[in-house]
Amino acid sequence: MDILDCITKKRDGGALSRREIDEMIRGITEGEVPDYQTAAFLMAVYFRGMTDQETFLLTDAMRRSGDTMDLSDIPGLKVDKHSTGGVGDKATLAAGPLAAALGVPVAKMSGRGLGFSGGTIDKLEAIPGFRTRLGEEEFREQVRRIGIAVTGQTGNLTPADKKIYALRDVTGTVENRSLIASSIMSKKLASGSDAVLLDVKCGSGAFMKDLGEARELARLMVAIGRSAGRKMAALITDMDQPLGLAVGNALEVREAIDTLRGSGPADFTELVLELTGAMAFLGGRAPDAETGRKMAGQALAEGQGLKKLQEMILAQGGDVRVTEDPSLLPEAACALPVRAEEEGFVNRIDAMAVGEVSRDTGAGRRMKDEEIDLSAGVLLRRKRGDRVRKGQELAVLFGSDASRLAELAPSLRRAFSITETAPAPVPMVLDRVW
Amino acid sequence: MDILDCITKKRDGGALSRREIDEMIRGITEGEVPDYQTAAFLMAVYFRGMTDQETFLLTDAMRRSGDTMDLSDIPGLKVDKHSTGGVGDKATLAAGPLAAALGVPVAKMSGRGLGFSGGTIDKLEAIPGFRTRLGEEEFREQVRRIGIAVTGQTGNLTPADKKIYALRDVTGTVENRSLIASSIMSKKLASGSDAVLLDVKCGSGAFMKDLGEARELARLMVAIGRSAGRKMAALITDMDQPLGLAVGNALEVREAIDTLRGSGPADFTELVLELTGAMAFLGGRAPDAETGRKMAGQALAEGQGLKKLQEMILAQGGDVRVTEDPSLLPEAACALPVRAEEEGFVNRIDAMAVGEVSRDTGAGRRMKDEEIDLSAGVLLRRKRGDRVRKGQELAVLFGSDASRLAELAPSLRRAFSITETAPAPVPMVLDRVW
Repeated sequence: MDILDCITKKRDGGALSRREIDEMIRGITEGEVPDYQTAAFLMAVYFRGMTDQETFLLTDAMRRSGDTMDLSDIPGLKVDKHSTGGVGDKATLAAGPLAAALGVPVAKMSGRGLGFSGGTIDKLEAIPGFRTRLGEEEFREQVRRIGIAVTGQTGNLTPADKKIYALRDVTGTVENRSLIASSIMSKKLASGSDAVLLDVKCGSGAFMKDLGEARELARLMVAIGRSAGRKMAALITDMDQPLGLAVGNALEVREAIDTLRGSGPADFTELVLELTGAMAFLGGRAPDAETGRKMAGQALAEGQGLKKLQEMILAQGGDVRVTEDPSLLPEAACALPVRAEEEGFVNRIDAMAVGEVSRDTGAGRRMKDEEIDLSAGVLLRRKRGDRVRKGQELAVLFGSDASRLAELAPSLRRAFSITETAPAPVPMVLDRVW
Repeated sequence: MDILDCITKKRDGGALSRREIDEMIRGITEGEVPDYQTAAFLMAVYFRGMTDQETFLLTDAMRRSGDTMDLSDIPGLKVDKHSTGGVGDKATLAAGPLAAALGVPVAKMSGRGLGFSGGTIDKLEAIPGFRTRLGEEEFREQVRRIGIAVTGQTGNLTPADKKIYALRDVTGTVENRSLIASSIMSKKLASGSDAVLLDVKCGSGAFMKDLGEARELARLMVAIGRSAGRKMAALITDMDQPLGLAVGNALEVREAIDTLRGSGPADFTELVLELTGAMAFLGGRAPDAETGRKMAGQALAEGQGLKKLQEMILAQGGDVRVTEDPSLLPEAACALPVRAEEEGFVNRIDAMAVGEVSRDTGAGRRMKDEEIDLSAGVLLRRKRGDRVRKGQELAVLFGSDASRLAELAPSLRRAFSITETAPAPVPMVLDRVW
């Protein structure tokens, strides 16, 4: 097989066979296919797309390109949860323990933040002592023992996806549904859970801006997972404003703890209950997602989620006292309030803009492997629909450099659209793909 | 400037600015832009195209990427002739000397063959002793002294085009009009002639299969040359059957000599006269191309073209006796006639198929820098429109390996379509772009 034939076949709108896709992914993984041919292929896919069948085959080939995790010795249906990424998305920190408290084994590998979007591993590292690199056996053992473990990627999972993703990032070929879906799903399939709940974010602070696109991506990922024999469901959830009030690592850990205590922001609490309910259903602990959601509400009220989070922090070497005394989390040296310059209702909070401001406080990265400031970020004081008077706080910036925060304040203020009348409410869950 | 911005701009259908194109070509030339980004850009151009203005800018940036030849110390309007490549195209060997005989200075840099398509430098090397690597000063001096020199590329001309062409070849991005036109024209502009005659081949044995496409390519290249202040003309000529009877290096040299003696095949002689007439016009030696063509016919009849070829062979160290005694050219050890299996008229000779058979006799290359057999190739005995009886020769295969020739015979026979009635005649010159 000649990779050039694959490139021209795709360029001309053809569909690749299993043999062609397998050989290409093998060649990419082993370094036989030069990056310039992979790049040309990816751009051809950008323009021509892939059929569902091709996308299944591509996902499967990438899944098989490296190690795969075997969780079969952990009893029960292991449920993974994956968010396509947004601003202020600390859902794993709350829905993970809550689902585990309902008896759903959660064996989760997470990533770090990049650009406007955060990552669970960074957030967890805001907890002093918390270890995010578990060995494979330790990881499995912890899930067996307490029902949940969250780690950075272990082993050499989906090396083909790593190579392809790195190329997409620098060749303008990120935004293609088949490439996005196969990248996410190859990792999910390789990490060995029996079921996957997808949280497809939609809105200004998400990769998918449009509900139709988000639905198509959700549909495709659900189809990929099912074709590989996994139980699948997807929620499409609002990311047109940041999730909850906190954006930034330590700030978000604190908000997740508050939420598991029952005193979290309404929108984030709503999402956590929806996700947990769906995970309980996928994990066979609830007959349907609605019942699952009720069980989740009950467990939250009883403090079972917080208890499970404490067990997880303890198991992974973190300082469990943070759940009682949040001042033990990293605290920023400087705080700068951003105030409203007019009166009215918050009509919109541009989530992408808030994500970028948070990144620029030091909470996020422009480039991979950059150091970040775990204490930095943005705390919103008003959300969409809230009334605000001139001079009242819209948000507070946190960071180590007061002059940097002052520079960022205008951008953060501009992220808020203030109007005379209140906007129509937007539901948290925009759609479901079961 | 970020190359990724250029990629996404082009991907989304935008037109690049002069600054963007200049910076990108500089980055490619100096190795700052990695091949994978260039490859992604080329595929985006494949899908989105370029405006004429972008194509002018790209051509100019590539022209300036390396050395440029200065021919200004040679008196007269120097005329270059460029064929887009075909099967059996030895026109430079005959039209070059004939135009020089009419007083048009011809300073020509030529290339080698690849795939089904031959190259003038390979053909000239079939003449024992002929030197195809002239120093820059020697090259200029020879044009001044005898009016013609043909050499392989001297100096570091258009390194950006070399890099880009090499990538296009392996990424499925050869067939784009702007990329083809800028590649050809950047070299033509860098090699310093005042006027360029383009011979755009059209048909089964050419890169352009379709007359509309060929016209568009011709129009674009003429526009590029004029925007750079050159005198330009293009002929679109038939390449639906091989040109002349000979395909293969020594065989083609022999045919070119025969033609300059007045005993060449009708189609090839016709093309040589048309090209020479147009060159005489562009070089200011004829008031128009028709008059130029008459002058070319006159010079041919008087043997002036052959005399000029002899001067050139002598000047470049070749054995000039080949023009009197063609048996001094390399002769193949084996010859295998291919005979008609039915009676009728030759309706079509698939030029691409003949080019590939000739390549596989050893006359051409599958990969750059491969060794070739100068004596090998195909000699046609019948052309389109000729009558043939069962058992008569359609063509003869030449090469060093009789069993290889026997393997190739069926493909060569299949290249001929025999029908009961004669096909309508096709003119040699399909169109002119002045």
